[in-house]
Amino acid sequence: MRGMVYHGPGKTNWEEKPRPPLQESTDAIVRITTSTICGSDLHILKGDVPGVVDGRVLGHEAVGMVEEIGAGVQTFKKGDKVLVSCITSCAKCDFCRKSMYSHCRHGGWILGHLIDGTQAEYARIPYADTSLYSLPQDADEEALVMLSDIFPTGFECGVLNGKVQPGDSVAIVGSGPVGLAALLTAQLFSPAQLILIDQDENRLRVAKSLGATHTINSAGGKTAEIVLALTGGQGADAVIEAIGLPATFELCQALVAPGGRIANIGVHGKSATLHLETLWSRNITLTTQLVDTATTPLLLKAVLSGRIDPKKLVTHRFALSDAGKAYDTFSNAAREKALKVILSTR
Amino acid sequence: MRGMVYHGPGKTNWEEKPRPPLQESTDAIVRITTSTICGSDLHILKGDVPGVVDGRVLGHEAVGMVEEIGAGVQTFKKGDKVLVSCITSCAKCDFCRKSMYSHCRHGGWILGHLIDGTQAEYARIPYADTSLYSLPQDADEEALVMLSDIFPTGFECGVLNGKVQPGDSVAIVGSGPVGLAALLTAQLFSPAQLILIDQDENRLRVAKSLGATHTINSAGGKTAEIVLALTGGQGADAVIEAIGLPATFELCQALVAPGGRIANIGVHGKSATLHLETLWSRNITLTTQLVDTATTPLLLKAVLSGRIDPKKLVTHRFALSDAGKAYDTFSNAAREKALKVILSTR
Amino acid sequence: MRGMVYHGPGKTNWEEKPRPPLQESTDAIVRITTSTICGSDLHILKGDVPGVVDGRVLGHEAVGMVEEIGAGVQTFKKGDKVLVSCITSCAKCDFCRKSMYSHCRHGGWILGHLIDGTQAEYARIPYADTSLYSLPQDADEEALVMLSDIFPTGFECGVLNGKVQPGDSVAIVGSGPVGLAALLTAQLFSPAQLILIDQDENRLRVAKSLGATHTINSAGGKTAEIVLALTGGQGADAVIEAIGLPATFELCQALVAPGGRIANIGVHGKSATLHLETLWSRNITLTTQLVDTATTPLLLKAVLSGRIDPKKLVTHRFALSDAGKAYDTFSNAAREKALKVILSTR
Amino acid sequence: MRGMVYHGPGKTNWEEKPRPPLQESTDAIVRITTSTICGSDLHILKGDVPGVVDGRVLGHEAVGMVEEIGAGVQTFKKGDKVLVSCITSCAKCDFCRKSMYSHCRHGGWILGHLIDGTQAEYARIPYADTSLYSLPQDADEEALVMLSDIFPTGFECGVLNGKVQPGDSVAIVGSGPVGLAALLTAQLFSPAQLILIDQDENRLRVAKSLGATHTINSAGGKTAEIVLALTGGQGADAVIEAIGLPATFELCQALVAPGGRIANIGVHGKSATLHLETLWSRNITLTTQLVDTATTPLLLKAVLSGRIDPKKLVTHRFALSDAGKAYDTFSNAAREKALKVILSTR
Repeated sequence: MRGMVYHGPGKTNWEEKPRPPLQESTDAIVRITTSTICGSDLHILKGDVPGVVDGRVLGHEAVGMVEEIGAGVQTFKKGDKVLVSCITSCAKCDFCRKSMYSHCRHGGWILGHLIDGTQAEYARIPYADTSLYSLPQDADEEALVMLSDIFPTGFECGVLNGKVQPGDSVAIVGSGPVGLAALLTAQLFSPAQLILIDQDENRLRVAKSLGATHTINSAGGKTAEIVLALTGGQGADAVIEAIGLPATFELCQALVAPGGRIANIGVHGKSATLHLETLWSRNITLTTQLVDTATTPLLLKAVLSGRIDPKKLVTHRFALSDAGKAYDTFSNAAREKALKVILSTR
Repeated sequence: MRGMVYHGPGKTNWEEKPRPPLQESTDAIVRITTSTICGSDLHILKGDVPGVVDGRVLGHEAVGMVEEIGAGVQTFKKGDKVLVSCITSCAKCDFCRKSMYSHCRHGGWILGHLIDGTQAEYARIPYADTSLYSLPQDADEEALVMLSDIFPTGFECGVLNGKVQPGDSVAIVGSGPVGLAALLTAQLFSPAQLILIDQDENRLRVAKSLGATHTINSAGGKTAEIVLALTGGQGADAVIEAIGLPATFELCQALVAPGGRIANIGVHGKSATLHLETLWSRNITLTTQLVDTATTPLLLKAVLSGRIDPKKLVTHRFALSDAGKAYDTFSNAAREKALKVILSTR
Repeated sequence: MRGMVYHGPGKTNWEEKPRPPLQESTDAIVRITTSTICGSDLHILKGDVPGVVDGRVLGHEAVGMVEEIGAGVQTFKKGDKVLVSCITSCAKCDFCRKSMYSHCRHGGWILGHLIDGTQAEYARIPYADTSLYSLPQDADEEALVMLSDIFPTGFECGVLNGKVQPGDSVAIVGSGPVGLAALLTAQLFSPAQLILIDQDENRLRVAKSLGATHTINSAGGKTAEIVLALTGGQGADAVIEAIGLPATFELCQALVAPGGRIANIGVHGKSATLHLETLWSRNITLTTQLVDTATTPLLLKAVLSGRIDPKKLVTHRFALSDAGKAYDTFSNAAREKALKVILSTR
Repeated sequence: MRGMVYHGPGKTNWEEKPRPPLQESTDAIVRITTSTICGSDLHILKGDVPGVVDGRVLGHEAVGMVEEIGAGVQTFKKGDKVLVSCITSCAKCDFCRKSMYSHCRHGGWILGHLIDGTQAEYARIPYADTSLYSLPQDADEEALVMLSDIFPTGFECGVLNGKVQPGDSVAIVGSGPVGLAALLTAQLFSPAQLILIDQDENRLRVAKSLGATHTINSAGGKTAEIVLALTGGQGADAVIEAIGLPATFELCQALVAPGGRIANIGVHGKSATLHLETLWSRNITLTTQLVDTATTPLLLKAVLSGRIDPKKLVTHRFALSDAGKAYDTFSNAAREKALKVILSTR
């Protein structure tokens, strides 16, 4: 088979690799029909993710067909259409039993990281029973592949941790794919205000078209003043950080109302300043989370019943074998106006 | 009447003041029978609390007798024994309707801060119906005065925000009065481990006698290693910060288990470093809170039914008129082995 | 002034009454501009509500203008546009402090029940600060008067108690005004399925137009089978009873999935059979509630931001002085295809 | 091996059976060292549990040693000391992923019911990784075997569903083993009042010794009056039904405070009357549950840290081979003053 292989910082190649065999009785081999590229794949390319070694097939998002199953797989059979979760869950360890699959002692984020991933014609999925999700045969693959990672990420780390409720004012700092996934899934709870903050005018326009009630270009330097004005001087009930920089995390602290929540989604490489000298008395809740994907069944129902349409984030489509071009486009997201790029065998 | 009056940084005096009159129909005048001194009173003495002006009667904790009520007071009458809450609640504003009395638009922490307080023979209590709590006539005043502030503070900001549950491992950084109030109220939820951390050996001994399962002298510099060893390598499910310094707040981040909670009680004067570069993926919840005292009725039941005994924190007793001596003792807490000092008219 | 006065079972009259004066310092007098009729008003007319005596002005729903305030009212002034809540809350008692205003020791449902109500030119509102809600001057009164009672009722007793979540299957038994209010407010949480059950084809058509994904005419006797078929054999995650009869309550028990919730809204005059012989092992939660209206601020934000439109339930409009005709129409709701009838002075 | 075998209503025999072999790769064979008898075993003996067929080995509670494991078992090895849960959980199905193991699509309550059980020298445990729990080698088996069933039952179905909180008034109807397990585990949350209600004076004495603050002999017919008097006229915040009869379930409805919870533990054979004509407006939550045993890890920590001592319920001890005598004693619990009877190989 062929797949997108990492060969050290800045080097990837679409090349021949042996088709992965079953290794454990709980494995399944999935023929990939749709995949996509994640911001973390770009982090890997920069060499920022030390667990990824030379020769690794990249990718942790996919929809595909079950090709082969181990003897211990009970839920799936050859020919089933499935969603591959970015998080592998053994279902048995203490963390899995608490629905904290991200910290699974035998899984977690391993695809395209510690084992070969999904930007390939075939992928081996460990603990298939609890790391794959059944899809209807006629499912819209472009929409559903968004549920491998960014939709549960935006929803769990942003919307649920932010405890978004009807009537709330919600501020989202960062209008990239994950911030927009938070924007779309936040609407499942009908907040009154959804304020998107970014420096990219194109992305703010997209946010507006996807349901943002207000957008703020933070380049203007008046973000906190504008959010306070929009919220009657209170600040936002929920503030979602979807960038991952010290500066944007600090901005969140200036936007949150007393009693409010700051929900961090961003992947941070550096520590940040926490203004406890003001926040200590403001009854704030701050959360961090690596996505557990425990809400994947809920999100599948929400998508299949038409309550949200993740396909709205798809801007570009490539053949899987053109993964290199897809990376080029996604790496120049601002110039290309790219959000999510689809890799497809069809 | 006489009271303990602030005259600028470092200067207080026990002196004559006019007995406070009723100002609003919702006020009550309370004759103070028992009061105490809080860590915040020492902050005031240092000049760190700009809202406190020359001439202010200090104190926000008391038990007393209702002496006089305004026409709009429905719940109390002259002669009732009452607990004075450190937080004044109008009950009507948006924050009060959400049980966030600390942010009451007409109250909050005002006693001994923005209006005259309770280290005096009489105090005026605004919004008496919802800022006083009825006590039995034979109530143990020394025990119950602890419910004015430090017990709800330890319980709400520490134990409830830390979501302490049966079987949990709990680490409390700081073994002063508030840390010990967290220690005592945490036991209402029967955690498996209660690890107290401080640099004062006397206070650690007290903590042990009050139910700590383990104590760690953080001067040893191995606190994180010890907590990890005690918790099977996981860290504590709930970590409670009860000091208020950047260093102790950073320590908390090193002690918390994946999926755990850091509950800040400490009053911070400076910002702190938040290690998002490690915490971003650890599913942590971090909380801050100025005590709301919304749990005062619950704590009253817990004390009156004998489930907790706040009196265990009382180390020294003074006549109210000896408030000056009491401040001396409390200001030298380590030397005097002082936790809470009682001021009493009896 | 004139108002709609009860004179014993079956007898009402639009007649002259003295304009209500202020009685307590916490009262406000409101000039009613929009009111409506509730199902409970019909219960009163049948003589089923013993607290209502001859001479009582009916009605507990209204929008109006503040005409006069008592000395203790802080939040409102003459000329303010306000929503009158069906529940009067003193804000001070133990129940009010737990947001259980329905059981307020000095209020609760008293308007048009134990004191004169809102189907009149003026009404006296006790505890005005916490029983009225501020509205914008240009507010749509027909929409907002729905927030006096049926919207918080459908939302709190049905949707919140039913813990409706994105992706859920929800069954609502009863497609009258309150069932439809539950239908509209359930959509704030984006369930996947909203199954409305009734015997009135017109109301089922209305339900479909208001967002029901499926409707079932229960006259067919196959309701449980159909719900099971629609939900993959599981039953509904949340079942909302909005009628108040033993038979409909029993039906709910047949519709609920293991782990599901039955949320009763209906006003019941008789006991019902609870099938514990099957339910004991099915992990069911069953709730009852008299509306607290604690969510009125949330619902106001949801309406004013356009997330729900309560006006969709208005089918008929009358002058307030034609209240008699309005009662005739509302009493023959099926024949008249009436849902909510507006009484207005404009 | 030998085991306690069911041969139709009223007929059991301690007899030779083949030692169970591994059937699936996820099975373990456990050598039983301690077992006990449950109220449900008596239901089986009466012929009330149709799933139990002639030849079935009884029992669903045990502590033992792992003797043999299937190829797919990851967590345990031969020689490990383990607790056998009464609930078998596959960990993979939709119910298991929601922690509702009682409804596991491949497990649930099957031991001593649909497959051979634990009152035998050996038992086959399906899905061993998630149906057994690791114990220290020196664990107190008599205490820990209580965690197979009655402690999670009393805790989950009674205490957690009843949302017992510090300061609460709790009434428990039924002072048998499960009611007493609720009594002991309720104390993990430090309620102010724990009122035990039964007709057996001996059991009420035991309840008092185990922490009941009050006991009521319901034969007196004044239970509701007494509970109201004890709770200041309010009723109990949490009422736990631990008997399973229509009359005791009706009694619970008379004991509950407005805003309170009724948590059913009892196994009911008949429907009961629900007094919706009064309860509809009292903001009550009523729950049912077949124990999930999802809290077993929590309870293990609570026992091993000394927060609760389940051994207090043990009244009689027998050799496993004397299981017949143990059934005689347990079947005459009132006469024998029996609570839990231990079956042991040591």
